[in-house]
Amino acid sequence: MLKATIIVKLKEGVDDPEGKTIKHSLELLNFEGIKEVKVAKLYEIYLDLSLEDGKKEVEEMIKKLLVNPIIHDYEFRVEEI
Amino acid sequence: MLKATIIVKLKEGVDDPEGKTIKHSLELLNFEGIKEVKVAKLYEIYLDLSLEDGKKEVEEMIKKLLVNPIIHDYEFRVEEI
Repeated sequence: MLKATIIVKLKEGVDDPEGKTIKHSLELLNFEGIKEVKVAKLYEIYLDLSLEDGKKEVEEMIKKLLVNPIIHDYEFRVEEI
Repeated sequence: MLKATIIVKLKEGVDDPEGKTIKHSLELLNFEGIKEVKVAKLYEIYLDLSLEDGKKEVEEMIKKLLVNPIIHDYEFRVEEI
C-alpha cells in the first residue's frame, strides 16, 4: 500500500479569503502579533499500486484534478506504508 | 518573525465528504487502485512574537478556533524564519 501526501498552497499574491477570515477571527479573540494567515489543502491518497505506478498516477491526479497551475503551488511525496 | 504550521486532520472514523468526493472524481477520470482519500487543512500563521510567546499563542489559537477536539487530530510546529 502506498500513501501519497499532496500539499496545495495558493501562490504568493493570490487572494486568500479563508486566510483573511481566520486572521480577522483570531484578532477578534484578542490574539496579537499576527502578520498573515495562509490556508492550504493537504490530501492523503491511499493507493494499491507499485511505487513506480503510484508516483506516475499521483502526478497525473495533480495535473488533472488537484492543482490549478495558475493559482497553486504544490509539493508531494509517495511512500510505502 | 515566526512561522507556525498547523495541520488539522479529521479523526479516524469521522465522515470525510470532501475526501469521498475527490475519490469519486478521480475514479471518474479512470484512476485506479485508490483505496481512500483524506482531506486536511494546513494553516500557516506568521507572527511577530518571541518563540516562547508564539508557541503559547498558537496553542491557544488551536484550542479557541482552529481545532475541534471531538472530530480533529492535529500537529503543529513554530519556527523562526
